[in-house]
Amino acid sequence: MNQYRVLIDANDEKGLVHKVSSIFYNYSLNILSNSEFVDKESNKFFMRSVVEGAVNKQELTDAINAVLPTNASVKVIEPKKKNIVIMVTKELHALGDILIRHEAGELEANILAVVSNYDHLESLVQKFDIPYVSISHEGLERTEHETKIIECIEAFEDVDYIVLAKYMRILTPRFVEAFEDKIINIHHSFLPAFIGANPYKQAYDRGVKIIGATAHFVNNNLDEGPIIAQEVIHVNHAYGWRDMQRSGKDVEKVVLSRALKLALEDRIFVYANRTVIF
Amino acid sequence: MNQYRVLIDANDEKGLVHKVSSIFYNYSLNILSNSEFVDKESNKFFMRSVVEGAVNKQELTDAINAVLPTNASVKVIEPKKKNIVIMVTKELHALGDILIRHEAGELEANILAVVSNYDHLESLVQKFDIPYVSISHEGLERTEHETKIIECIEAFEDVDYIVLAKYMRILTPRFVEAFEDKIINIHHSFLPAFIGANPYKQAYDRGVKIIGATAHFVNNNLDEGPIIAQEVIHVNHAYGWRDMQRSGKDVEKVVLSRALKLALEDRIFVYANRTVIF
Amino acid sequence: MNQYRVLIDANDEKGLVHKVSSIFYNYSLNILSNSEFVDKESNKFFMRSVVEGAVNKQELTDAINAVLPTNASVKVIEPKKKNIVIMVTKELHALGDILIRHEAGELEANILAVVSNYDHLESLVQKFDIPYVSISHEGLERTEHETKIIECIEAFEDVDYIVLAKYMRILTPRFVEAFEDKIINIHHSFLPAFIGANPYKQAYDRGVKIIGATAHFVNNNLDEGPIIAQEVIHVNHAYGWRDMQRSGKDVEKVVLSRALKLALEDRIFVYANRTVIF
Amino acid sequence: MNQYRVLIDANDEKGLVHKVSSIFYNYSLNILSNSEFVDKESNKFFMRSVVEGAVNKQELTDAINAVLPTNASVKVIEPKKKNIVIMVTKELHALGDILIRHEAGELEANILAVVSNYDHLESLVQKFDIPYVSISHEGLERTEHETKIIECIEAFEDVDYIVLAKYMRILTPRFVEAFEDKIINIHHSFLPAFIGANPYKQAYDRGVKIIGATAHFVNNNLDEGPIIAQEVIHVNHAYGWRDMQRSGKDVEKVVLSRALKLALEDRIFVYANRTVIF
Repeated sequence: MNQYRVLIDANDEKGLVHKVSSIFYNYSLNILSNSEFVDKESNKFFMRSVVEGAVNKQELTDAINAVLPTNASVKVIEPKKKNIVIMVTKELHALGDILIRHEAGELEANILAVVSNYDHLESLVQKFDIPYVSISHEGLERTEHETKIIECIEAFEDVDYIVLAKYMRILTPRFVEAFEDKIINIHHSFLPAFIGANPYKQAYDRGVKIIGATAHFVNNNLDEGPIIAQEVIHVNHAYGWRDMQRSGKDVEKVVLSRALKLALEDRIFVYANRTVIF
Repeated sequence: MNQYRVLIDANDEKGLVHKVSSIFYNYSLNILSNSEFVDKESNKFFMRSVVEGAVNKQELTDAINAVLPTNASVKVIEPKKKNIVIMVTKELHALGDILIRHEAGELEANILAVVSNYDHLESLVQKFDIPYVSISHEGLERTEHETKIIECIEAFEDVDYIVLAKYMRILTPRFVEAFEDKIINIHHSFLPAFIGANPYKQAYDRGVKIIGATAHFVNNNLDEGPIIAQEVIHVNHAYGWRDMQRSGKDVEKVVLSRALKLALEDRIFVYANRTVIF
Repeated sequence: MNQYRVLIDANDEKGLVHKVSSIFYNYSLNILSNSEFVDKESNKFFMRSVVEGAVNKQELTDAINAVLPTNASVKVIEPKKKNIVIMVTKELHALGDILIRHEAGELEANILAVVSNYDHLESLVQKFDIPYVSISHEGLERTEHETKIIECIEAFEDVDYIVLAKYMRILTPRFVEAFEDKIINIHHSFLPAFIGANPYKQAYDRGVKIIGATAHFVNNNLDEGPIIAQEVIHVNHAYGWRDMQRSGKDVEKVVLSRALKLALEDRIFVYANRTVIF
Repeated sequence: MNQYRVLIDANDEKGLVHKVSSIFYNYSLNILSNSEFVDKESNKFFMRSVVEGAVNKQELTDAINAVLPTNASVKVIEPKKKNIVIMVTKELHALGDILIRHEAGELEANILAVVSNYDHLESLVQKFDIPYVSISHEGLERTEHETKIIECIEAFEDVDYIVLAKYMRILTPRFVEAFEDKIINIHHSFLPAFIGANPYKQAYDRGVKIIGATAHFVNNNLDEGPIIAQEVIHVNHAYGWRDMQRSGKDVEKVVLSRALKLALEDRIFVYANRTVIF
């Protein structure tokens, strides 16, 4: 008995659910869960099923592909731990939350390494017997620095996701292209408000009554990638921007961990700079 | 072209999605939305589809029934305004919210009448050209009073739902049986906390930091019917119980209206004293 | 026995609480509630006390003024209904919520009139015996239209607040100056995200997972005035922009009514484009 | 220059703010923040001020005491790290969150030890160079076991708080009395709903749409002590009780850490089985 996550992404047409569910039925697969969504505007069909039964992965993939329209995408995924690299700068809270969840067995992930441009968090990471790679940016051109990080990450085999757990440097297009659709970032505002540097200071200056955080995939435009998860908290006049920053940390870590879990469980589809999440 | 909401409730077995979606496909129906859920504990399968096409309602019902296990339930419903009767005592906020939504065209409902044991809200209801029936309980035995209300409601044809928008009298089993699965109540606490009278006073006495409201179907046990929707707000030490009551009104009206909309849109399944909501 | 709300706004210096509370004590006033805040960045002191006792309003004002630094502001306000004018375009929900709260006696306000550039909401408003003034903008220059509205509003005596309950036209600086610090608007996004037209469409296009609403005072820059209240709700991929718009209405009406109550109860200080709210 | 937190708890009478603020003024103390609350029902006055200046702690305490009614309580506290002992059973998440916050310097606390009736969490705690004391309950009477734990805790000097971070055994009155007003517990439901064992199972059985967690001081009645903080999350029909348990962990850890911070910052007054929190 194998368990598979089946992710389908196709142009919508009549009968897709029928055709796919027929295949599940013919292979005597048990459907553990099933979610569908049609985006009427773009005429796109999305489906995520978790199925169980005695079938070969490639055979199932081929069978589904055969009934789908051209240009459809099918992924049949065996649940197993994914490989992640975490990047940080100096702040501990988001990394710490991931380390604790990892320790508790909550995450379907192997943490291959934590990479930073500082060594501030080295002692924490080493407690958990996870490699810490400090690659200082000092004295280096941005591209030189990134080259070193890319080389470091590429030295690992099969990196599924790179998690920016408050990595405070802007990535160049070259870096982003090297790991397309694999980089998850936490931005400390409810995007698209307060793009860029020091969003809490911006939020304070604007006098908002709500602050938030946004986890998103990174594409070439700063803070403009597809949003995975967002959360907010209420603030009031007594919050200076450093109070917002302090309180915001609790939201940041929750949102990043939530987004990471969604990614690890293969629950996210990306299209048209947005996400469908089952 | 007709549009139908198809609601299926069956013991789970392999192939149900396949069989039902085959019927949709064979009748050339377009699936506008589709939701499924299997409750593993009770082995129950629930499905709600919205489909569109040229098929007769009875024919579609029969076709689906033919492929389902025995004891399954199929409802094929044409979207149209449902008939509701609202019952109130003296408080205005929950009724007012429904009247305004009705006026705005937000509700798929005809309000046949507002029934009350007082005449406090008569002038409000009459502004909206809705019949107001005042049936005082004074000087009457409980059963006499209820008999009058039941007669009043049964005089209307086809009452789909009775909405208790802060009707502050306890209903007898006889009343509840007369309108089984049709009575929606708003209770002013997050059930099962603070069952019974004056939940805000109870909440204040317990020193809670959160208060809430619960919309539920009414069965014979007070405040113990299947929960449809719940919502909460934060309070603090400065809230006396009357402040909680005042603030709680905003939650009550939101939760009741949300539950009512779910019912009117045929999104609720009830089983085992719980609800599945698509 | 009189009850007063005392609002003080001064440059901070040592002893302000002491000096003001001494006056309350000397006049044998009972303090029903007391809130203070010092904004360290701007060195501003804010205080709101509700006091009760046998003292003349002017005498109390003068006594407090005498102990405060120069440039301080003191307001001693008797709780009573404030006069408001509501402006709307075509949407019913925000206006409806205010009308129902007014009917329920929840608002310390007289609604002098509802002014609109359309007559869509006339029949609703008239149910509540409130004057409805329809001033069409068709065929008029913007300034001509505004002149008519200003004349209409100024014909009422003592208008305390103008509530824009989804008034969908941009106000000119001239209008805003005519009613400085008196105009409360509801914007249908969590500002500063999605300034301007159709924020739900903007939110949909950005693929956000949270939408919201913001009540704020209006100043000359569109959607940039001091924020009074904000609230959000979660959305997901299944929400088209019209679904967001529909769901957003519930947030809009809640936030606007909350802001209005804060204003009516004299709980808001405005400074540096932000609000202090007690 | 010293900084003090001044906490006053007295029967209310006219002039208390005046009298206390006079003392601050006479000692030339700078008020950094100031909060007051009068509970009208019990006629109790609460005040928390943070002041700064050149005054001796005892002198300030005596001066304030001299102007307060009899039976009043004054605490003048220097901000410094408090000593805490954490008690756990097997679950990692709540403890982990505290350890990470401690590591990040977010908590005004020294963690003296983690005490458990199992050794499951020993390796985690030792990573942080914090003593882990495993005191198995196996083969021991409840009172014997508790005696060992009490001895262990009392061997430390000056324990300010005992934090039950999912310690899953019921404490006897003797234990509670030994550490009166010092024990903070996290209960995995929004109390008073679902007192006792396996609240998530209870919540599932009741079919709730909201689950939550409650941090409270422990008194002799199980789950009935004064509530410090509560938080909830929405669930739906797809949540089995183990899903609720899994999702609930995120709420539990947030609520417990929030309550702990409030305690460490001397922001909590307890009276009449409730809390006033500034």
